[in-house]
Amino acid sequence: MTGKVYLVGAGPGDPELLTLKAHKALKRADVVLHDDLIGPEILAFIPSTAEVRNVGKRCGWKSISQEGINSLLIQFAALGLQVVRLKSGDPLIFGRAGEEIEALRQAGVDFEIVPGVTAALGAAAATNIPLTHRQISSALIFLTSHHSNGADSSKWPAHLPSDATLVIYMPGYQYQSTAARLIEAGLKQATPCAIISQATSPEQQVHRTTLKDLPLAPRLPAPTLLVVGEVVRFADHTSLRGEFAWSSLEQQVLPLVAQASSSAESEQFRGTQEQSE
Amino acid sequence: MTGKVYLVGAGPGDPELLTLKAHKALKRADVVLHDDLIGPEILAFIPSTAEVRNVGKRCGWKSISQEGINSLLIQFAALGLQVVRLKSGDPLIFGRAGEEIEALRQAGVDFEIVPGVTAALGAAAATNIPLTHRQISSALIFLTSHHSNGADSSKWPAHLPSDATLVIYMPGYQYQSTAARLIEAGLKQATPCAIISQATSPEQQVHRTTLKDLPLAPRLPAPTLLVVGEVVRFADHTSLRGEFAWSSLEQQVLPLVAQASSSAESEQFRGTQEQSE
Repeated sequence: MTGKVYLVGAGPGDPELLTLKAHKALKRADVVLHDDLIGPEILAFIPSTAEVRNVGKRCGWKSISQEGINSLLIQFAALGLQVVRLKSGDPLIFGRAGEEIEALRQAGVDFEIVPGVTAALGAAAATNIPLTHRQISSALIFLTSHHSNGADSSKWPAHLPSDATLVIYMPGYQYQSTAARLIEAGLKQATPCAIISQATSPEQQVHRTTLKDLPLAPRLPAPTLLVVGEVVRFADHTSLRGEFAWSSLEQQVLPLVAQASSSAESEQFRGTQEQSE
Repeated sequence: MTGKVYLVGAGPGDPELLTLKAHKALKRADVVLHDDLIGPEILAFIPSTAEVRNVGKRCGWKSISQEGINSLLIQFAALGLQVVRLKSGDPLIFGRAGEEIEALRQAGVDFEIVPGVTAALGAAAATNIPLTHRQISSALIFLTSHHSNGADSSKWPAHLPSDATLVIYMPGYQYQSTAARLIEAGLKQATPCAIISQATSPEQQVHRTTLKDLPLAPRLPAPTLLVVGEVVRFADHTSLRGEFAWSSLEQQVLPLVAQASSSAESEQFRGTQEQSE
């Protein structure tokens, strides 16, 4: 029997957002090497006879290098096993799959990529934000603050179009510098944005604000996404009210900030208004 | 019983790339309104008792307006039915879902969005192109030439970063003007690109070239995607040779063009070399 490696996207979190193909690959796996962010409901699809290893690098504790992961994939395949490398979202977006592909090619190991619903699409669906919209957004741009390869916002394009939707993966909590960087790249201070935490999971939380007020946003639990653009205005109002636990700190601070602001610019859209309506 | 509308992404073509949730929604549907590009294998998941309508606007023949589709969705839901609005790829990317969402909201109809694997991710997986890659591509940009709302390349950002991956949905066959527009926006003539036709289907074809030589590319059958960026170099060589039926016209014309070119710039990458290696 010939071994094979499947680089599989696990989707944004909700186990029902696995593809049929990913589900089949997990059911047939002899070995699964998965990232930290894969939830227990998804791991439950794996047969109990399979070997399952968390090779996530977020936990710090007992970390394994990218070279170590490549080496494991090749070794298990050489034993004739069906190996699943399970990554959250889609394997080809901000996931280092390029390096695993090159290693497998060089080793002559048969492999296949099973795409997944990337986090941006899951988060947009769960909050009813159309990522493109006529007249409002004719381009969709994915960026990351914490690329698994050390990239940061200094690598972002110097100029960003104002009629695009941006989705920033792993935005971190440096909201002040993120907002400053985006405004420097050409976006308006009043541009709506939303932090979506643990998208598509029962713990999902959403905080909607503007670039100007982003520095005041709460630190919602990881994984988070930051969606920036006029389309954020379409986010579902009802679900926002239900899903975001508004902290007392923000309730006290934001109205003061709003009063202090000279509001020379039209502020059609504010996190404070959104949350208190 | 209360009616509900599900805006469902059918994925890039391969029926196995439906999500478990989309599959479940189809199995339980009373009515399915689908786009033209949905294949028969996916429609086969729908129970025979359900009403299935093609509301695609590409066929020309018996077209239905967006307002007409919105109205049908609302009417069927008002009858207490489970209605699936099935769109290829992901419903929130270049799919007019924003308008359907607004219509459903205004009518007070309960709805849910089921995300899907968007065409770019399916095509990238099927050709082993990592859409992001350390040092090579730190941003991923989706554009469209034929937005369902009439947008075209004149709406593209004036400046495009050279270290990003671009995916152009529905690029059409105006390769000359597309290439000119991208070069005008800052991309190099030698930037690799690939036209991927009918991605993830058994009929998939791939043509790899450069922006400079894009005008000479064959008109592969729709739906196509154009992927532009250095990451295209990682596309699978073996699958390219197997999948692309190289026309005799190009075999005769391209070498002549190559000879005629003064090749002042380094042409590390050419469709001709790729296809004949």
